[in-house]
Amino acid sequence: MLTLHDYLPSQNGYKVRLLLSHLERPYRTRLVSIFEGEGRSPAFQALNPVGAVPVLELEDGRTLAESNAILFYLAEGTPYLPLGPWQRAQVLRWMFFEEDHVQNGLASLRHWTMTGKLARRMPEVIAAKRAGSLKTLGILEQRLAEHPFLTDSGYTVADISMFAYISRAGEADVSLEPYPGVRAWIARVRAQPGFLDEVHPYSIDPHSSGELP
Amino acid sequence: MLTLHDYLPSQNGYKVRLLLSHLERPYRTRLVSIFEGEGRSPAFQALNPVGAVPVLELEDGRTLAESNAILFYLAEGTPYLPLGPWQRAQVLRWMFFEEDHVQNGLASLRHWTMTGKLARRMPEVIAAKRAGSLKTLGILEQRLAEHPFLTDSGYTVADISMFAYISRAGEADVSLEPYPGVRAWIARVRAQPGFLDEVHPYSIDPHSSGELP
Repeated sequence: MLTLHDYLPSQNGYKVRLLLSHLERPYRTRLVSIFEGEGRSPAFQALNPVGAVPVLELEDGRTLAESNAILFYLAEGTPYLPLGPWQRAQVLRWMFFEEDHVQNGLASLRHWTMTGKLARRMPEVIAAKRAGSLKTLGILEQRLAEHPFLTDSGYTVADISMFAYISRAGEADVSLEPYPGVRAWIARVRAQPGFLDEVHPYSIDPHSSGELP
Repeated sequence: MLTLHDYLPSQNGYKVRLLLSHLERPYRTRLVSIFEGEGRSPAFQALNPVGAVPVLELEDGRTLAESNAILFYLAEGTPYLPLGPWQRAQVLRWMFFEEDHVQNGLASLRHWTMTGKLARRMPEVIAAKRAGSLKTLGILEQRLAEHPFLTDSGYTVADISMFAYISRAGEADVSLEPYPGVRAWIARVRAQPGFLDEVHPYSIDPHSSGELP
């Protein structure tokens, strides 16, 4: 059986849980106490030197880090990843966009907001992340105002990846009100068979000052 | 024939040029004057709303943005992308790592350093990007001290992607001296058949204050 090394408040972990829920694929969870510093333990660093969840572990012990790579792998041979190389490239295009712009924008802003780190961050840095988040939402709105999903291949792992943090924008104090296309897309994702409707609160983070921003 | 919308000082553009050089695949270049603001023109925004190069254009007019997605697409059916889903996932794992940690760390620091923006950035932000770059290099060193390439599938698009900015670390004032494994890997990449040995200086950027950091 698959093992998912996970931390429940992580939306990167949620990405994988959401796909596994769609696939009705059984798996075991191994909880990693990220906020108690377990991400920096030698045992976990051997799984992922970045120190982040999720990490997928196969039955034979092989492991794979990076939520978006895990999504791509698990979606192989399922309706959540198209077959054609061009179609796959378009899925990857949005997943790389997510990795670059959402992880370092909205996801980081949400983390700071929910854990109280925001008060210790410089206003200019917060403003830059907020501006970046609005630019990202504008780009998504442009696509989603006129198309049901991110690519022309229906609901794919590109949407699953993007949904994880974009749908929680409010928790970063970023309103989705000006983005009706994005809001309609969120409703479409939530209506997919096997949608996983869960979100876990952050603990207060005793290690936050030692973490990367 | 393929058209590559490109800007020569962009190392993200170089990633694609390097792969095309290995593949000896002919293509046409359409230069985009990023620093003169052309990335924000409606014509270019239709190709990539992020406003960044490279963008790949097929003969029939279809386009693909994001350098790492372009690499994955062009490497299909070549020795630069393994066939197995697990092996591909490991390639993607490093490409997503590059997108998240290198683009927002070393690549951004190099851009600031080479265009004179560094003087206008806050010391804390510079320090955070420098710390992030050292963490990234430490992770790469751990892998490359004991393995010839990033994955166990030989020289792949994961290495091509990572090489673009890591090999230019000195231009971000980050020394590779403490990372012998990374330096040996750089030499191995440079020794690959069809290696493209080019780098283009940045122009001074008249639009830099209007850009995202």
